[in-house]
Amino acid sequence: MNERIKKLKEELKKHELSGIIVTNPINVKYLTGLFAEGTLIVGRYENIFITDSRYIEDVTNSIKVEDELVVENSKNLKDVDYEHYFLRDSQVGFEENYVTYADYKDLMATYKVDLVETESMVEKLRSVKDEEEIRNIRKACEITDKAFEYIINNLKFGMTEKQLAYKVERFMLSEGASGLAFDTIIASGEESSKPHSEPNERVIKQGDIVLIDMGAKYNGYCADMSRTVFVGECRFEKEYNFVLEQQRKIVSGFKAGSNIKPVIDMAYKDYEVEGYDVMHAFGHSLGLEVHENPVLRNKDDEYLEKNYVIAVEPGIYEIGKFGIRIEDTYLVTNDGVEQLTKSDKSIIIV
Amino acid sequence: MNERIKKLKEELKKHELSGIIVTNPINVKYLTGLFAEGTLIVGRYENIFITDSRYIEDVTNSIKVEDELVVENSKNLKDVDYEHYFLRDSQVGFEENYVTYADYKDLMATYKVDLVETESMVEKLRSVKDEEEIRNIRKACEITDKAFEYIINNLKFGMTEKQLAYKVERFMLSEGASGLAFDTIIASGEESSKPHSEPNERVIKQGDIVLIDMGAKYNGYCADMSRTVFVGECRFEKEYNFVLEQQRKIVSGFKAGSNIKPVIDMAYKDYEVEGYDVMHAFGHSLGLEVHENPVLRNKDDEYLEKNYVIAVEPGIYEIGKFGIRIEDTYLVTNDGVEQLTKSDKSIIIV
Repeated sequence: MNERIKKLKEELKKHELSGIIVTNPINVKYLTGLFAEGTLIVGRYENIFITDSRYIEDVTNSIKVEDELVVENSKNLKDVDYEHYFLRDSQVGFEENYVTYADYKDLMATYKVDLVETESMVEKLRSVKDEEEIRNIRKACEITDKAFEYIINNLKFGMTEKQLAYKVERFMLSEGASGLAFDTIIASGEESSKPHSEPNERVIKQGDIVLIDMGAKYNGYCADMSRTVFVGECRFEKEYNFVLEQQRKIVSGFKAGSNIKPVIDMAYKDYEVEGYDVMHAFGHSLGLEVHENPVLRNKDDEYLEKNYVIAVEPGIYEIGKFGIRIEDTYLVTNDGVEQLTKSDKSIIIV
Repeated sequence: MNERIKKLKEELKKHELSGIIVTNPINVKYLTGLFAEGTLIVGRYENIFITDSRYIEDVTNSIKVEDELVVENSKNLKDVDYEHYFLRDSQVGFEENYVTYADYKDLMATYKVDLVETESMVEKLRSVKDEEEIRNIRKACEITDKAFEYIINNLKFGMTEKQLAYKVERFMLSEGASGLAFDTIIASGEESSKPHSEPNERVIKQGDIVLIDMGAKYNGYCADMSRTVFVGECRFEKEYNFVLEQQRKIVSGFKAGSNIKPVIDMAYKDYEVEGYDVMHAFGHSLGLEVHENPVLRNKDDEYLEKNYVIAVEPGIYEIGKFGIRIEDTYLVTNDGVEQLTKSDKSIIIV
């Protein structure tokens, strides 16, 4: 059995659960390597993946004997088969943050068990990255860095945001990215004040601020980086340096074991002193998904662990005027953090 | 107030609900035109969209007075404000097929109401397309047809599936598509036997079958079309004609008011007689999403209505050998269906 399922079984035991029903496809992929619609049942003994005719060929071909995974085609299963996977009325975990209310009711009716919330058990395992995952994220970050260099060399007056976004996305794919972590944001001039702006037909011109938020995927793993550059001149030096300093201060407060809350509390105070609004969280974890938990906020005490991967992204925005965001992907280590995206953060005027 | 929200309010009244909490972003977009994270509260009287700082600028700029929509920034709301949106313990609808179990519990705690399942109330409104929606889908289908012509003119031996998929996706975007309805499937040779194959590095060669499943989006609305073509020679004439005939038979059974079940039952019988397995549903509705309800299957009685838009996609697959699928997008009318994707369905040898 693979290491990840072994760890999950230890968690199940700790929580006194007879098993877990995993339906989130990202969690299924993490635990089994399979990317197919279906349900993974991890029991105390047997592990079963129930899929359908569309995926059965691929799934059967890609699992190995040592995976100890039984594959079932749902069309061959009768109602009573589902009831045999667990003892009737036993305590079985489910993914309360993924399963819809309607599906929750279906699961109960199908498996005839007591469903128990697992508080993101699999997602929590995913937070600590293993060596292979870190290698993939490093590679995704490298491609993202190259893409930023490409932007700096190719950003010209008269280009639209959409044209630039399209070019850089093609560049990332040509450099070996297995996909994009998310749709690239290119937000120029006053558009930069919208943290989730979509590239549009606005032409980039002299005097513009250009906010770039992008990330490659490599073997399914995400990078996330933002840079804000200036066309012709920089009229926001003070603001830029404030954001950069915030990023520096936040990451200097992080290492394995750090509580996120007091570090973010401190950033809030600095924002208040300078009169800036906090428009979004200061960052988030990432991996197979670009937004994973924990989020970098000051809601509750939450602790970083070794080999968490986080994106730290302070920003300031003045509605209808400008926005500045600086973001990097970091690996949490015992002594601090290692910056994985490495593009220049000095003020760049193109 | 817009027509769509008006219709929703009539439904709420019919179901004796004081309101509905809409969180599915596609439903929010359908009802308001807004594409932003947030919660739409449609009450008996007032309609409120609660969003956050990231979206507030865009949202405030894009709503009009006649929308009668109050916009709130969640950071300005206190716990007690949420409790004032509905009378305590009143019956309020929620989207049981979208809201996770964890969010369901949060909604209850936040709004202090009795949450009632709405059986996809908004999705059901979405099933009947209005004139503007049909115009958008027609345009998406036109672009998809052009893209098929492009494929036929550009498919060459020695190309990989990935290269062809990339070229045709770029073509659709250059023809004015606002996006892709889904990632294009190009499945060649034995790969075609996987209904959900992803384009890979397989080189397309003499004697191959090539299954293409693709669709453009236009103004957010989807098209969906599949064609199966042959390289150099066709060794599957009998199988191809069976699939084509199934599509013809199915659509000849459809018009406004038709029950889907008996039509699909008939197709199942034909498959059984010929010894083919049914590997996936025979089709689905589409619109803002490429897979909407109703699905074309024989599970329960379900009826088509005028101005439903459906994709009909029979296919046969022999694992590890070949797959054939033919799919078109149709508009349901009073007398039958109108085919919206119009690409050639005779046997094409490239």
